Amino acid sequence: MDANIKKQVLRTFTYGLYAVSCASESEVNIFTANWLTQVSFDPPLVAVSIENASKSLPMILRSGAFTVNVIRSGERELAGKLGKSALKHPAKLEGIGFDIGEKGCPILREALAWVDCEVRHTVEAGDSTLVVGEVVGIGVLGDGLPLTMNEAGFRHAG
Amino acid sequence: MDANIKKQVLRTFTYGLYAVSCASESEVNIFTANWLTQVSFDPPLVAVSIENASKSLPMILRSGAFTVNVIRSGERELAGKLGKSALKHPAKLEGIGFDIGEKGCPILREALAWVDCEVRHTVEAGDSTLVVGEVVGIGVLGDGLPLTMNEAGFRHAG
Repeated sequence: MDANIKKQVLRTFTYGLYAVSCASESEVNIFTANWLTQVSFDPPLVAVSIENASKSLPMILRSGAFTVNVIRSGERELAGKLGKSALKHPAKLEGIGFDIGEKGCPILREALAWVDCEVRHTVEAGDSTLVVGEVVGIGVLGDGLPLTMNEAGFRHAG
Repeated sequence: MDANIKKQVLRTFTYGLYAVSCASESEVNIFTANWLTQVSFDPPLVAVSIENASKSLPMILRSGAFTVNVIRSGERELAGKLGKSALKHPAKLEGIGFDIGEKGCPILREALAWVDCEVRHTVEAGDSTLVVGEVVGIGVLGDGLPLTMNEAGFRHAG
């Protein structure tokens, strides 16, 4: 396989942008994810692929919970800020407004909507881990459209 | 959880539309999927959630392979046709142009690009099964944009 064609093809996939949040041992984190999809209607399940070399993955595996915040259209800067590695940028949450939800995970005040999930399965997936969570809570914070990778011009695929 | 709010929230997620194809015992099938995402860069892995009550899931589990065809913008009708249940509409592939790829799976002539995958993991996910495949072949069939759920106006989420 030609590496450039592989990138070109895998970048034709369509993605939204989400701020996935977690909490463990009185610490919280929020990171930008695009490899995320619903995977079942009944029960409602969501899967997100999370880099093994991240701060959040062990937090989510310990706590068994995460929250998906749907980022609003126009919030490219927020997505970029939360997309930085928390290991390299420990102060990346400074200035980000959030409240703590029932599962202990941050709910972004600027989000379009949020989904509280309890971890049901984890699957090794190369450099990442696929975490499947059941939807146990939801909320709508406003009207509007979601931010897409296409709008943001990000390229986390390939 | 209010069922209508759950639907509303889960329908804010962003999806593309893909024609996933498979082959088993000299039979082929192609179905429309939107619950599909890349899940790893190294090795390159793709995950797709497939309804348990489908014709294709057992075919893919037997053959260990599937192909993701990225549907082009403007091809809403094709996505709708392939989105019908093959169990209820056994002739749904009539009039659809495809060639057979190296893994034995159909490659749509009208696709934007395609990705051949070998199954690496499967995970039970409620009414569906999450199938994780490694990218083992790719091809570009033309320029253009991918079809999104937003463009098609479909609502397979919630």
